[in-house]
Amino acid sequence: MKQKLSYTIIGPGALGGLYGARLHHAGFKTHFLYRSEYEHVRQHGLRVDSPWGDLHLSDLSIFRSVEDLPPADVVCVCLKTTSNHLLSSLLPSVAGEGTVVVLLQNGLGVEQEVQALAPDALVAGGLCYLCSNRVGQGHIHHVDYGRITLAAHSPGMDEVLETIAADFNAAGIPTDLAPDLALARWKKLVWNIPYNGLCVVLQTETDRIMADPDARELARQLILEVMAGARACGSVIEESYEPMIMEFTDKMKPYSPSMKLDYQAGRPLEIEYLYERPLNAARTMGVDLPRIAMLTAQLRFLDRVNTA
Amino acid sequence: MKQKLSYTIIGPGALGGLYGARLHHAGFKTHFLYRSEYEHVRQHGLRVDSPWGDLHLSDLSIFRSVEDLPPADVVCVCLKTTSNHLLSSLLPSVAGEGTVVVLLQNGLGVEQEVQALAPDALVAGGLCYLCSNRVGQGHIHHVDYGRITLAAHSPGMDEVLETIAADFNAAGIPTDLAPDLALARWKKLVWNIPYNGLCVVLQTETDRIMADPDARELARQLILEVMAGARACGSVIEESYEPMIMEFTDKMKPYSPSMKLDYQAGRPLEIEYLYERPLNAARTMGVDLPRIAMLTAQLRFLDRVNTA
Repeated sequence: MKQKLSYTIIGPGALGGLYGARLHHAGFKTHFLYRSEYEHVRQHGLRVDSPWGDLHLSDLSIFRSVEDLPPADVVCVCLKTTSNHLLSSLLPSVAGEGTVVVLLQNGLGVEQEVQALAPDALVAGGLCYLCSNRVGQGHIHHVDYGRITLAAHSPGMDEVLETIAADFNAAGIPTDLAPDLALARWKKLVWNIPYNGLCVVLQTETDRIMADPDARELARQLILEVMAGARACGSVIEESYEPMIMEFTDKMKPYSPSMKLDYQAGRPLEIEYLYERPLNAARTMGVDLPRIAMLTAQLRFLDRVNTA
Repeated sequence: MKQKLSYTIIGPGALGGLYGARLHHAGFKTHFLYRSEYEHVRQHGLRVDSPWGDLHLSDLSIFRSVEDLPPADVVCVCLKTTSNHLLSSLLPSVAGEGTVVVLLQNGLGVEQEVQALAPDALVAGGLCYLCSNRVGQGHIHHVDYGRITLAAHSPGMDEVLETIAADFNAAGIPTDLAPDLALARWKKLVWNIPYNGLCVVLQTETDRIMADPDARELARQLILEVMAGARACGSVIEESYEPMIMEFTDKMKPYSPSMKLDYQAGRPLEIEYLYERPLNAARTMGVDLPRIAMLTAQLRFLDRVNTA
């Protein structure tokens, strides 16, 4: 019988802390790379308040330095993409030949970069549909949702990805597989690009956007632009996806997307991977996305002022 | 010798109060239509603090009702365009045959509407380059600038417009004439559309926009879109106007455009005449202005929330 896979969580915040805690709790060997929270978690453990069950784990395998991490089969990168400049120093020592690196991140283009940093690793993307906040040191409040869609970037990793999905499901994390990573990433952008950006620029929440005729129509136009960008890049999203996303957002509870929470907390915004990479990818294929370009410029301005 | 022209000021706020006070002070018969400030101005007069000379006028000819206004040769409409729905009840009794109606307002399309309301009047537009604030009841602080460009809308009024310009200059208001009202209005929009809207949406001032690479480029693109809209409508603005406007704004002191001040004070924004009319005019000619359309949608949303 094969040995169970072991996991490393890089960036165990609101997202990585939740998933890592579930894996550990389900009996998977799981290592956590902490930075500023290391001492607090070492002394007080990790608390997760969650509709999946509250956890308070004081027996975690935690490390402060990437050099001290034991080898693991699967490295889950759970950093915000605003910290992706750290990957060039983090990955080489943990992502050797055959290691699976799962990028549980938003946006476009992360897998290509990580594959370049770790050419012998098997790289996959994970799309997380999650509402979770870090409410204090070593303390996570998982509010709702949490489903993950995994998709391969490197060739020849379908089997191991199935095992990982099975592990995640066994740990209580609803996880499925998608056959086309680029398509899955673009489909997530169809929601992320309009609603993250507009909630920041208009200082509002999703329900107010949907209730206002002008903001609603603007969101719809942005959705269509993302779909045009996807199509230009070879990821064809069916037309019915636009009304489906509108209806989905209509039915959501009032919601502040992660970028809005980052903005309010004075954290840097994930503009590069959520906006600039898709814009550039479409532009490379000769397609301009003027509304997304304008939203990007507005976000870059607000981000600069906000983090100055 | 011809008799001097007489004037009526409709909406003697930060703009109309300044100009009316200058006309009165220079000896022109000038009537003021006040609404909420009537009682205060009647008791305490009108104060104008201004680099053109401070005035405190207690002998003004003021009225509370349009029916009580004596006839005048020239009616200056100094309302914000957000109050233009009042014009259908205000104008008929003061803008009879041969009366000159000067619209000292921002935006596009006001003259056509007023000409329809007062078909026998001679209608002109006035573009004011003014920084002035109402700081209290009957109290205006004229900060800087104040030049007016007048241009005819109705045919056959060149001579009277020259007299009006001479009167204004005699009253210390630098005033010139432009031969093409539509072109003059579009040229003013080239500044107004980018900087009013961006200062509201980005919660900032002109100097911050000019200092930020993304916001600056967005302002430039909006400038070019206004010029494209003007061209579509037959008002051809020379290409050198774009770098000229950028340089002009670079050299300005940090500045909050009037729409930003309106927004901060919770007043309704002049979106209709500054944004929607130009957009629709260009659209009628088959030209879409996507960035201006997006800015308009954002402003309409923010305005609704702000005045709710």
